Amino acid sequence: MNPDRYAPIGVFDSGLGGLTVVREIMRNLPDERLVYFGDTARVPYGSKSKATVIRYSRQIVRFLRTQKVKAIVIACNTASALALDTIKPEIDIPIIGVVRPGTDMAVKATKNKRIGVIATESTIRSGLYQRLIREADGEIAVFAKACPLFVPLVEEGWTRDPVTKIVAERYLEDLLKQRIDTLIMGCTHYPLLRSLLQEVAGTDVTLINPAYETAQALGRMLNENGILNDGQIEVGERYRFFASDTVERFNAFANSILPYEITTTQVPIESY
Amino acid sequence: MNPDRYAPIGVFDSGLGGLTVVREIMRNLPDERLVYFGDTARVPYGSKSKATVIRYSRQIVRFLRTQKVKAIVIACNTASALALDTIKPEIDIPIIGVVRPGTDMAVKATKNKRIGVIATESTIRSGLYQRLIREADGEIAVFAKACPLFVPLVEEGWTRDPVTKIVAERYLEDLLKQRIDTLIMGCTHYPLLRSLLQEVAGTDVTLINPAYETAQALGRMLNENGILNDGQIEVGERYRFFASDTVERFNAFANSILPYEITTTQVPIESY
Repeated sequence: MNPDRYAPIGVFDSGLGGLTVVREIMRNLPDERLVYFGDTARVPYGSKSKATVIRYSRQIVRFLRTQKVKAIVIACNTASALALDTIKPEIDIPIIGVVRPGTDMAVKATKNKRIGVIATESTIRSGLYQRLIREADGEIAVFAKACPLFVPLVEEGWTRDPVTKIVAERYLEDLLKQRIDTLIMGCTHYPLLRSLLQEVAGTDVTLINPAYETAQALGRMLNENGILNDGQIEVGERYRFFASDTVERFNAFANSILPYEITTTQVPIESY
Repeated sequence: MNPDRYAPIGVFDSGLGGLTVVREIMRNLPDERLVYFGDTARVPYGSKSKATVIRYSRQIVRFLRTQKVKAIVIACNTASALALDTIKPEIDIPIIGVVRPGTDMAVKATKNKRIGVIATESTIRSGLYQRLIREADGEIAVFAKACPLFVPLVEEGWTRDPVTKIVAERYLEDLLKQRIDTLIMGCTHYPLLRSLLQEVAGTDVTLINPAYETAQALGRMLNENGILNDGQIEVGERYRFFASDTVERFNAFANSILPYEITTTQVPIESY
């Protein structure tokens, strides 16, 4: 089956954070149609087990297939780290996560071969960031730190708050002692802390945003598969949004970070 | 059907926090058998919608019924506030939440008739604490504040940390300006912050722990229904623990706050 190049791309996340990836795809691939699913009824994934994250991700992939997507982006670091390798051989359309695009760029960016990774507990525990970097260049030293308070701090809206700065100083202290020159923001919420993180890490440290790198890698993947949308045919709505919990909070957050006013449909994801 | 007085009591929570209620029941009603379910695969409930929390609570009640429980305790403030009134008429065994025992004690404790409530976003938004207090005594003024960072701070282990103190000072500032003399800790994690909260609120403010009050109220409810366990017959295991996610993290936390070494069984709660 050759998927339709005019079909949408499916993007999913544990909740709202993946919208930062959507924003980058909209900027980088403006002709592409998107179907987004946020698992707001079961968010977050970052403290949950591999088996549970795989089960949830499979349900979401089944839902996205009902929307006739031509490719899938796992816009969640935890699901990318825990579920991508399992799901990839199970489906016949291209699928990409945010971890590898992030590590590819970090490996290119580091000069002193010392890279830091910050992410959720489950992402760090999976060891995937660490492994992919070492596979790309065995001479690179990787220093990883779980930062479980960053997501709630962002969701509380304290992105430029003195409390968040103290927390960031504490989380980054060991990484900075290790003289990293590159820091991967390995959770989709963290780019919303970018300026604060840059201040704490210092201007000598390059911050890597996997959301941006993933949008670039997605374009290359679609092109290689001959399914890049050339924008010649307008088919249906460009962007559609779905969530597993009721949609009021989702819409409020989405409309604050996307350049489009959106509406969202609730999906009973447990039945997929 | 007259339920067996030697049957266990079912206790459930969105995750681990309800174990503070379990601890109080073990102390107060040492002859009772308990079946605990923690919904660790979908935790937390505090940011989710009423419809979703009701759906999850119904699934858990169906699971607990398969364990032949004689009564149910909703050991989660959010589920008590959002789902108890809906579920109570649907079942034929006694069921109790943590909200009413907490408000009953707060109404007795206040002298200046000014009560503060701190809880999750969903609990505060439900307005149930506020409504029950006003129904008990229309002259009492209630001041409510959602404190979404407290749960992640407790789970990070920062219960006596300067960062947590700054956050608490900020969250409690408006309540203290209102000269409350009584403060309900309306989330099962908050009693783990008790000494820090007392320090911030000052010794003139009485802290109410709904977990403790619920264990007392449970004893009265069992007695009124003639199903209090008199401890004369030993039947099967005294305490059984179940969770929806894998159990390693659950056991580690449980063994840190309970006086018993426990083991936990995973349950596919979505299928109930």
